[in-house]
Amino acid sequence: MSDVASAHGVPDRAAPLAPLSVAGRLDRVRAALAADVGPAGDGAARAGDGPRPDALLVTTGANLRWLTGFTGSAGLLLIGPDRALLATDGRYRTQAGQQLAAAGVADEVELSIGGLGAQREALVGAAAGATAVGLEATDITWSAATSWGALLAPLPVVATHGVVEGLRVVKEEGELARMERAAAIADAALGSVLPMLAGVREGAVVTEADFAAALDHAMRLAGAEDRAFETIVASGENSAKPHARPGGRVIAVGDPVVVDFGAIFDGYRSDMTRTFCVGGAPTGQLATVFDVVAASQAAGVASVAPGVAAGDVDRVCRDRIAEAGWAERFEHGTGHGVGLDIHEGPAVGAGSTAILQPGTVVTVEPGVYLPGVGGVRIEDTLVVTPTGSRPLTRFPKEVAV
Amino acid sequence: MSDVASAHGVPDRAAPLAPLSVAGRLDRVRAALAADVGPAGDGAARAGDGPRPDALLVTTGANLRWLTGFTGSAGLLLIGPDRALLATDGRYRTQAGQQLAAAGVADEVELSIGGLGAQREALVGAAAGATAVGLEATDITWSAATSWGALLAPLPVVATHGVVEGLRVVKEEGELARMERAAAIADAALGSVLPMLAGVREGAVVTEADFAAALDHAMRLAGAEDRAFETIVASGENSAKPHARPGGRVIAVGDPVVVDFGAIFDGYRSDMTRTFCVGGAPTGQLATVFDVVAASQAAGVASVAPGVAAGDVDRVCRDRIAEAGWAERFEHGTGHGVGLDIHEGPAVGAGSTAILQPGTVVTVEPGVYLPGVGGVRIEDTLVVTPTGSRPLTRFPKEVAV
Repeated sequence: MSDVASAHGVPDRAAPLAPLSVAGRLDRVRAALAADVGPAGDGAARAGDGPRPDALLVTTGANLRWLTGFTGSAGLLLIGPDRALLATDGRYRTQAGQQLAAAGVADEVELSIGGLGAQREALVGAAAGATAVGLEATDITWSAATSWGALLAPLPVVATHGVVEGLRVVKEEGELARMERAAAIADAALGSVLPMLAGVREGAVVTEADFAAALDHAMRLAGAEDRAFETIVASGENSAKPHARPGGRVIAVGDPVVVDFGAIFDGYRSDMTRTFCVGGAPTGQLATVFDVVAASQAAGVASVAPGVAAGDVDRVCRDRIAEAGWAERFEHGTGHGVGLDIHEGPAVGAGSTAILQPGTVVTVEPGVYLPGVGGVRIEDTLVVTPTGSRPLTRFPKEVAV
Repeated sequence: MSDVASAHGVPDRAAPLAPLSVAGRLDRVRAALAADVGPAGDGAARAGDGPRPDALLVTTGANLRWLTGFTGSAGLLLIGPDRALLATDGRYRTQAGQQLAAAGVADEVELSIGGLGAQREALVGAAAGATAVGLEATDITWSAATSWGALLAPLPVVATHGVVEGLRVVKEEGELARMERAAAIADAALGSVLPMLAGVREGAVVTEADFAAALDHAMRLAGAEDRAFETIVASGENSAKPHARPGGRVIAVGDPVVVDFGAIFDGYRSDMTRTFCVGGAPTGQLATVFDVVAASQAAGVASVAPGVAAGDVDRVCRDRIAEAGWAERFEHGTGHGVGLDIHEGPAVGAGSTAILQPGTVVTVEPGVYLPGVGGVRIEDTLVVTPTGSRPLTRFPKEVAV
């Protein structure tokens, strides 16, 4: 493992990153509202025959962060035609002001700190002059939508879908730099703990939960703010469950071990899956599963390029698996966008019509799961480039440990 | 620190726990719907003059788990008058069946595995015979509520609030046993890493992020599935921010250090805050802050008993702090319920009218935050007993490290 570990050293924490360009994003939202259809093809849909919204109440945490830099757990942003206002409570008094300033939007975004009543009043005030207020319908609860409808009356509220998410699909340089750092941290962490799996051959007792805990800790030590999602370590028969949670099962020689994990760096996430075989190369049917999934994933990666429909990447992966007779054993989509959220647009699944553009980041992660035999999934996170794609996740795909 | 560490050894993972009584909870939901008002005083509110719902679509993850044992990230439960059906996708085919059986509800809950269309059709079918279907309005998105309204038509959908959450407020023995285990794991973990803070006096370089990572890892090693929420480690001036995220600040002698954290064991959470002073007892105004918050918290804990309104616990804590002249510096509620979620009912805040009952679990966590000086918060999680309360979190409250 020393090769792997040295090839994926811990990233230099002090290395400078391209800055984020937060300023000006509010005006891009205003333009997307005016255009009625979001830049990624998602509609700033009007509810029935309702009016076109020219203001937006942002409730989605990742959208709030992307637009203002604010990371508190409670906050609402009203983007009006002429004003924008962030409301939060006293816990975030200091932090909110600091984060708006750091993001360079202190002159674009007013700040209101107070109890719920004061926050609501300030947000309603910021909507002054609007014709209608969009609510992020795939995030806001039914209860909150009802309340805001009453608070904003006589201004009508309108359901919008993916207005800000559409703008987030194409990443800028500063965002890609953070995702690349997150992926490098994850690579380094896996390299540092993989000897635990190799130790199983020598008699070490390692449970799925032990390995997951070590991997999560290694990411933090390597500079991650956190893991990007609940790490999956699924061994032996558990590997046949695509979304198994790591448990007390002791990893054994001959086991396939699916490791699906990622890191967060400055809010941005990585996502990678490797499947190992403990004690040497896989044999029998499992060897075929490894080969088929590897070929499927490689074909999918090769198909990622600007102008390609995301659904075509899915089809390429799915065809390879279907040719092997396991179409029914690949029960999930091929991938998804990644960024501030672990699952964002575009979806990479059957029928996904989104067209890949330079700067879009997607995962390619086909898998085959055979109950009683085991499962294999291989996943990389790729950024679409002007000529094809570039992997952010770079850990080697050697199977035997 | 050896005393603390030995007093809070790692819990025995093999010690048996009282079983969970999942079977029969569906009928408690049906009864709560029929009663129109939930058992904790939350209304199974009817929207306007709409009909009373006699079916419920459960979208809230923790409710789904409480009712069926299912822990997958995607699943919906329809509780109809005569049938109940859990729908999820192929990723959870094996897991869902196993979890329903383990919870003892395989004969109460039908299972439907498939794509979204098949899931929806099965869920609509399970509502047959209902008069109206409740949607969990504080969880379901506006978009999903609109879709389900169309899918279930001509059956009307009705907004409900806290029907299942109301049933979850009073914990049974098996739940309390898990929460106690989670708290014991957190106590042991803090004991094992507190020497890092003591080491600062000897010149050790420890950042907030280092200490948080070590604490999180220690909880996993002690048997936690995960931390209960993002661990707060706020030192020096950062301690004046109630919800600071641990960062690169190096902890210094003389710093107050707020540590707010918890563990998850078998789905159930703990929550505890301790504030330490590095290098010895606090001095000056900070010493007064420590004393006032400790007195406030002790008074609040002493006030927790069956029959007491949650708002009175808040008032007791707040009065002590107001007497010291810092009413404006205690900018958050006194506490909240804990269980499968880190924040659940009842709220312990100004005007909370919920009456504490034996088996209710609440936190008591007053704090005072002085910009430029520092902040102090002390928190325990308590279960209400027939005669008063019992702490689940038991780490000593010595300040100097």
